[in-house]
Amino acid sequence: MAEPKSFRCVTCGREFPPWSVDYFCPRCGFPAGNLEVRYALGRGGLDFPDPEGVGLWRYAALLPVGAEHAVRLRAGGTPLYPCPELAEAFGLRGLWLKDDTLQPTGSCKDRGTAVAVAVARRLGRTALSCASTGNAASSLAGFCAAGGLPCYIFVPKHAPAPKVAQLVAFGARVFRVDGTYDQAFALALAASQEFGWYNRSDGLNPMVVEGNKTVAFEIWEELGDVPEAVVVAVGDGAVIAGVCKGFLELREGGWAARVPRVFGVQAEGAAAVAHAFARYRRGEPILPAEEPAQTLADSICVGKPADVVKAVRYVAETGGGYVTVRDPELLAAAQELARRAGVFAEPSGAAPYAALQRLVREGQLGPRDRVVLVLTGSGLKDPQGVTRGLPEPPLIPPDLRAVREGVERCG
Amino acid sequence: MAEPKSFRCVTCGREFPPWSVDYFCPRCGFPAGNLEVRYALGRGGLDFPDPEGVGLWRYAALLPVGAEHAVRLRAGGTPLYPCPELAEAFGLRGLWLKDDTLQPTGSCKDRGTAVAVAVARRLGRTALSCASTGNAASSLAGFCAAGGLPCYIFVPKHAPAPKVAQLVAFGARVFRVDGTYDQAFALALAASQEFGWYNRSDGLNPMVVEGNKTVAFEIWEELGDVPEAVVVAVGDGAVIAGVCKGFLELREGGWAARVPRVFGVQAEGAAAVAHAFARYRRGEPILPAEEPAQTLADSICVGKPADVVKAVRYVAETGGGYVTVRDPELLAAAQELARRAGVFAEPSGAAPYAALQRLVREGQLGPRDRVVLVLTGSGLKDPQGVTRGLPEPPLIPPDLRAVREGVERCG
Repeated sequence: MAEPKSFRCVTCGREFPPWSVDYFCPRCGFPAGNLEVRYALGRGGLDFPDPEGVGLWRYAALLPVGAEHAVRLRAGGTPLYPCPELAEAFGLRGLWLKDDTLQPTGSCKDRGTAVAVAVARRLGRTALSCASTGNAASSLAGFCAAGGLPCYIFVPKHAPAPKVAQLVAFGARVFRVDGTYDQAFALALAASQEFGWYNRSDGLNPMVVEGNKTVAFEIWEELGDVPEAVVVAVGDGAVIAGVCKGFLELREGGWAARVPRVFGVQAEGAAAVAHAFARYRRGEPILPAEEPAQTLADSICVGKPADVVKAVRYVAETGGGYVTVRDPELLAAAQELARRAGVFAEPSGAAPYAALQRLVREGQLGPRDRVVLVLTGSGLKDPQGVTRGLPEPPLIPPDLRAVREGVERCG
Repeated sequence: MAEPKSFRCVTCGREFPPWSVDYFCPRCGFPAGNLEVRYALGRGGLDFPDPEGVGLWRYAALLPVGAEHAVRLRAGGTPLYPCPELAEAFGLRGLWLKDDTLQPTGSCKDRGTAVAVAVARRLGRTALSCASTGNAASSLAGFCAAGGLPCYIFVPKHAPAPKVAQLVAFGARVFRVDGTYDQAFALALAASQEFGWYNRSDGLNPMVVEGNKTVAFEIWEELGDVPEAVVVAVGDGAVIAGVCKGFLELREGGWAARVPRVFGVQAEGAAAVAHAFARYRRGEPILPAEEPAQTLADSICVGKPADVVKAVRYVAETGGGYVTVRDPELLAAAQELARRAGVFAEPSGAAPYAALQRLVREGQLGPRDRVVLVLTGSGLKDPQGVTRGLPEPPLIPPDLRAVREGVERCG
């Protein structure tokens, strides 16, 4: 592991001794005062990547905690699928799908959770908590079950029943909050402070970004280089912040000569980070970022993004940007990705595929670009959500004639 | 890859030149005439395991087809989680969970599919088919989508809607058959013969067992040895046949000195293989094996097991046996496994955990045994099926007082 040099406030830049504060700069408050974990980076003598490391612990040399504190579930180490036929269809030099649906609890959130839970164990915290639209909650509940740690989960009322069922199965103590995600988030924070729970919420806990950055390390290691662009869905901003930070650290430490442009995708109806990015580009302040949020892609239905400052600044630093897509595009992307690539992502997870069509059309990506789409959440958590609008398969008698008719009619 | 020596009929022992016949010995018919793929095994000169191989292609030296024919989805390479705390609770020397829920489409069926689809491509077959209670169907649909191959799927009417949704998303041509799994199976076979589809159905296609055997190779490689026992759920028998064949080949080829006892688990209401095993032990013939089938564990709800001959003979050859468990035990096992280990399996996938309690109680497993439970299917495909009977989490106002009351009441 790498002992951090400091925890730095993203707004005022004040540096805190590592571990002296959990979540935010007391002067700037949350979310302006969110913390960045800083290291003294340099290739010299580092065992990075560590060939013996399992999953994301392969990159422990750039993580604030070592595998000895990890619980048993294997986070990270997900496949990167080359899709030459899709690259050709989109007119790109190369296209890969980073299938982060293949994590222990079915989403990329397991990266941040793995690191946050290991940190909790290192620090001797005895219970964890989080607010979540669903995926981070399942993730924390699963890792806590594996580690024998109690956890307290706050989900908004609209969280899909199958995701809540997963939490209940893992034995988490679940509060369904009669309100939005943003209200669940505030309540989880207040309760964690009152009861001393270590709060893993996206954006609030800087360890989540540390875990999330390993997706960049994996892409870099597997390609043997960094691609020209990476596209990822954005809700709270913690995943894209991690993707960017990983690539920025690879450059800072001398492992890569440059960073890819990182593009964030949001639903048109829940685009607070994209709007904050546009403001930042015009020289206006990022905060406050708070808007109504509505989209069928529940995992990115966030009106008050907790990691907006990092999500905006880091993306700008990579030369990337933000794209918004409409709900029907998200749904169509999930369906097309399953049909054309065999990867079953939820609509938010498939958002990068929807964005790709726009980015190519607008000329932001083209024949010189090798592009990686990060697929962040499994469609299995709500399969019927993915197939909305598709025809139901016919019920036939157990009779060859019925098959013959079906084949003759539809091929 | 290993070029097979022959395809051998499991009943009459007649040997066929490799690839001269797809499914069964014409003299003995299906299922008596199911085929075994035979190799000239020996360690000499084999690149086994191949450190460069991805997922199960690491074991290509003992597979009938090479990775060059594979589609892009990464089958195999799933985690083996040590559970010392559970081993202690059960009084075992060691206990591991082989988490085969972490496959591209969420079940161990992806192993057999990966090999069967690669074989189809090698043989120049242009469309595939199968009958399935759900998991094998999703698996084939996903791999065919990834490979751009059309596929025709036959599911029984009672297949869970979320599993059918996954098929539809993958763009498979789905026939819901108004009948049992066994009727869907017969119809798929007849239709495949009529239309020339390469049929991947469990039990029928010998390539499925070839893929499934890689789970044994992974356990052996990761432990650096074979355990004393392996426990796995049984529906059609193709998974357990693969597990056994893998270990038997490791012994035959000299990679391992012995085989573990392999135990199959069935639901009490769908126990045709267990009953056939009992008949075999009494010296009676294995076939016909056909019984009514009813269990909440839809993935193992099979009345006419297609691979019963291998599933019985191979298990006997390992010195293992069969256990049946009641539906409430299956449900409780899935819930307990999620809560205690952080692994979210469907009730059939968790069946080995239910069986473990019996095997220990009956003295079949004890303090000298290192035991691996193979978890075959993800709970994500039907999460509410796993949490049946568990209390719903409370809906609370976004107010700290409500949390305080909840914590005071329940901890």
